[in-house]
Amino acid sequence: MLKYTKFQEVMQDIKNAKPIDLRIDNAQIADVFSGNFFSGSLCVHKGLIVGFSKTMQAEHVIDAKKAWLLPTFFDAHVHIESSMLSPEKFAKLVIPFGTGTVIADPHEIANVKGLDGIRFMLENAKDSLLDVKIMLPSCVPALPFECAGAALSALDLAELIQEENVLGLGEMMNVPGVLMQDEKVLEKLALAYKYNKIIDGHAPMVHGDDLDMYRFAGVTTDHECTTVEEAKERIRRGMYVLLREGSAAHDLVNLLPAVNSHTLQNCLFCTDDKQCTDIMQRGHINNSVRLAIEHGIEPIDAVRMATINTARAYGLTHKGAIAPGMEASFMLVDDIKQCNPHAVYIQGTLVAENGTYIAAVNKSYNAKLEQLTDSVQNSMHPELPKDLTLPVPTKKARVIRLLPHSLLTKCEIMDIGVDEEGNFDFAKNKGLLKLAVVERHKKTGKMGLGLLHSEYGLRNGAIATSISHDSHNIVAAGDNDNDILLALAHVEKMNGGIAMFSYGELLAELALPVAGLMSMQEPKTVITDLQKLYDTAKEHYHIWDKADAFMSLSFLALPVIPDLKLTPQGLFDVTTFQFTDIAVQE
Amino acid sequence: MLKYTKFQEVMQDIKNAKPIDLRIDNAQIADVFSGNFFSGSLCVHKGLIVGFSKTMQAEHVIDAKKAWLLPTFFDAHVHIESSMLSPEKFAKLVIPFGTGTVIADPHEIANVKGLDGIRFMLENAKDSLLDVKIMLPSCVPALPFECAGAALSALDLAELIQEENVLGLGEMMNVPGVLMQDEKVLEKLALAYKYNKIIDGHAPMVHGDDLDMYRFAGVTTDHECTTVEEAKERIRRGMYVLLREGSAAHDLVNLLPAVNSHTLQNCLFCTDDKQCTDIMQRGHINNSVRLAIEHGIEPIDAVRMATINTARAYGLTHKGAIAPGMEASFMLVDDIKQCNPHAVYIQGTLVAENGTYIAAVNKSYNAKLEQLTDSVQNSMHPELPKDLTLPVPTKKARVIRLLPHSLLTKCEIMDIGVDEEGNFDFAKNKGLLKLAVVERHKKTGKMGLGLLHSEYGLRNGAIATSISHDSHNIVAAGDNDNDILLALAHVEKMNGGIAMFSYGELLAELALPVAGLMSMQEPKTVITDLQKLYDTAKEHYHIWDKADAFMSLSFLALPVIPDLKLTPQGLFDVTTFQFTDIAVQE
Repeated sequence: MLKYTKFQEVMQDIKNAKPIDLRIDNAQIADVFSGNFFSGSLCVHKGLIVGFSKTMQAEHVIDAKKAWLLPTFFDAHVHIESSMLSPEKFAKLVIPFGTGTVIADPHEIANVKGLDGIRFMLENAKDSLLDVKIMLPSCVPALPFECAGAALSALDLAELIQEENVLGLGEMMNVPGVLMQDEKVLEKLALAYKYNKIIDGHAPMVHGDDLDMYRFAGVTTDHECTTVEEAKERIRRGMYVLLREGSAAHDLVNLLPAVNSHTLQNCLFCTDDKQCTDIMQRGHINNSVRLAIEHGIEPIDAVRMATINTARAYGLTHKGAIAPGMEASFMLVDDIKQCNPHAVYIQGTLVAENGTYIAAVNKSYNAKLEQLTDSVQNSMHPELPKDLTLPVPTKKARVIRLLPHSLLTKCEIMDIGVDEEGNFDFAKNKGLLKLAVVERHKKTGKMGLGLLHSEYGLRNGAIATSISHDSHNIVAAGDNDNDILLALAHVEKMNGGIAMFSYGELLAELALPVAGLMSMQEPKTVITDLQKLYDTAKEHYHIWDKADAFMSLSFLALPVIPDLKLTPQGLFDVTTFQFTDIAVQE
Repeated sequence: MLKYTKFQEVMQDIKNAKPIDLRIDNAQIADVFSGNFFSGSLCVHKGLIVGFSKTMQAEHVIDAKKAWLLPTFFDAHVHIESSMLSPEKFAKLVIPFGTGTVIADPHEIANVKGLDGIRFMLENAKDSLLDVKIMLPSCVPALPFECAGAALSALDLAELIQEENVLGLGEMMNVPGVLMQDEKVLEKLALAYKYNKIIDGHAPMVHGDDLDMYRFAGVTTDHECTTVEEAKERIRRGMYVLLREGSAAHDLVNLLPAVNSHTLQNCLFCTDDKQCTDIMQRGHINNSVRLAIEHGIEPIDAVRMATINTARAYGLTHKGAIAPGMEASFMLVDDIKQCNPHAVYIQGTLVAENGTYIAAVNKSYNAKLEQLTDSVQNSMHPELPKDLTLPVPTKKARVIRLLPHSLLTKCEIMDIGVDEEGNFDFAKNKGLLKLAVVERHKKTGKMGLGLLHSEYGLRNGAIATSISHDSHNIVAAGDNDNDILLALAHVEKMNGGIAMFSYGELLAELALPVAGLMSMQEPKTVITDLQKLYDTAKEHYHIWDKADAFMSLSFLALPVIPDLKLTPQGLFDVTTFQFTDIAVQE
């Protein structure tokens, strides 16, 4: 929080008629309180908005030439890790699109590195001009038996709950835990409640009495609505509904019918998970604003959902509006419908122009990286498995089949060709892929093997990635053991990342050394590498166009989404919530 | 704040399928989040709303018979002292009208008794079922040279700023102090800022750059708007506008054109100052709701202004809506347009029926009264002045003239008839009244004398009152010295209050022993006494129908409202901001 002396300094300068830092004339200023735009001037001094005087003397006077002047946008719920960029680099990517504040849930890094991971996000974000608020991950690990890198109890979270940029408890995915009053879950809710903090929700398909109880327990947001009815049910219960527009989930347009002049103030925008390539191509929250306007929302109302609504929902009193006393974080936009800012100011300083980040990097790296960049090499078993032999003596196996554009899978029972020893034989199962999930946190050497339906594609090679929700063990898929082993080894060598091998050669790679999830490289570099991976997946591997090559792999190890998943401990049947054999007994 | 264990208890009972306390069926429930009413059931357990189940087993099931079910109302800014009732008795008066929460600024008692007075309000309120939140008075005394009972610095306020029911700093009336950056004013603003508390405003006729700076300083509300333009200017700057409907100020209807679907969330209701008789006759915030509906505001929007808007503006997260997790404080109303509740529930308990308060008084008086009930007898000079001789040697005097229905006065220069010694002579100035203001806090024995224009009325006697803003010295007016002296003496005898004498006899009285401002008696008793005073003022004294008999007197000693005022130190010319003589020199 700013100190009051900061305000006093500004007031003193104005009382002494000192010229202020900046005056922007001739702008169409967004008044998010009155719900309109007005032609006027904006006065800025020492990073704060001081008012609308048209005559105040200023060091710099800019003619906005009737451009729209909007507060910088808020992402109300984001896992920065999904961008594959460190918070500081993520900032450089999203600020040019007009994002100034994000409410981030470092759920991914927390699964790998626990509190150290969260601290890294907090610290690394301070090296950026983006205001990164943190919700403490509430569900690490996702399930008690998961092979995750960390487990966070209420006592652990208590260490960070009072940190300046921590706003509360991240998405409470353990809905049954809330409803059945799991003691460890209630402890976390009580912790947030005690410090008067926000509790974020995650309640897909929770309705009626269950939703009442979930809300009663203290949850006040939900970003998992996919239908208008769900949104309405939540708003009625006093919850804020986050309209999500991310890489995989495109709920925003579907939910817009729930937005009207009454409900508007309870509706916010978020991305949840958005890869750097997607952000580069389509923008960030400005893309949400654009989509909303395109689908009939008044521009000022779209701006409100992207700004003041989130500021108010999360208790951020000096942000989200163009008004005296607010942080001078704003943008100028020529075409409100396209919402591509040609100038972005953070706390009074011009930091991006025409989509390019131009702020000088004048902060030093405070975040301790050492402990985070060895998350693969030093935490894996000293030897990677060398043998991917997969026995299917019954010649009938449970095969994971992806559904189009979905994280859901089906369990398909298939006849399998085996070699003389009863092991899976690639040559006798055309197109069928082998899957491996290798534990990488506790040196257990555990590895699960499975089979993936040929529909996925992937010919002549293998892919391995250290991004695999939520525990982020290493997952690999391929049509031959050699490439799979090479890809796994390469991911280890990079200390995390994505690797593609074909006929024994490295085709493409992306190093993600920060907890095996993020790069410290510039957005441009990461985007280039990632794009090359995508191109390779499509052109060389012929991966199914209804599956995201990496997203599909990254969710194959998450044992909470039905039906069949693969963990380092083996196949997991989510429908029965039990481990199961790959070989089907007759 | 409720403890989380409270929520856990409720959740446990529901998990164990224990019958809940109360279910209300067949109600038209106000959904202040979606902006509509819906037919349904409300489930209540242990004082909290648990949901909308129609089937949950309950100890008591009530058929609402399609009555409207609304959250109890909020008064966003009130000086409880103006009701002349203690907080606990005020609660009994307003709860039957559906008020459940008030944001109170104990500015009056603070001027008499400082921190002890504020503590009394906090403590005494706890003996009631009304939720009384306190804003710490920011301007005690009103002016540095005032003869007030206390002076409160930032250091003093720091003692209470973290108290549970303290929400921030009360109306910052010292606008010049803010704009000129008076150090003591900034200290108070900084105190509120430091603890992330609200700063209430008071900025009549402040516009443009001045308003920018006032808002910049941290002020986020204003209840002094009288024009739509003022309201709009404030909303644009991110301030909440409180539409006031009190005893003297009737701004609500005038301000309604500033309310639309966009600005609504920034508009709240308040009474500011409302006497017990007025509340009894016209209601409290339900009167504001009624007026708003009558003038075209949608019922649900009027309800929102009276509930959730205030809850959100003041950060009260478990109040102001009918939703799971909220306090079960609500009312049933048969006619939404009239908005007279036939049943009021506070935290799940029926406390008022058909306008009658029915809750058992089961709390003990915790508040220390001793120090407050001697505010007149023990703090006044041992002897009341016995001589009201008023010399006007020049035979030309400055006379205070009231303006109709206003707190403003005019200074009228009049020729005065005097006796042989050059003193004012009643017999030679038909209808002209003598005014006396007697210091009652510091035993100084100071008394100011002045003249009041005959237009006020008041024949054949005198009135004295210990309510006189803001310092609350004793003010008296009369057409003969004897009755003035008797009335003054009687107010002293009652330890504060209002007294009327005529021809040496007591006509009517109201004892206000709590700091000379409030009674500890039941509302009914106080209302009866006060009504008798009003009737006497009208029938016996023939007081001008364009002046409130007591309000006019009570503001004659406030040296911040133009033009001419009388203090214990003498006449004060507010236009020149200097003391002045009663006698005009040729």
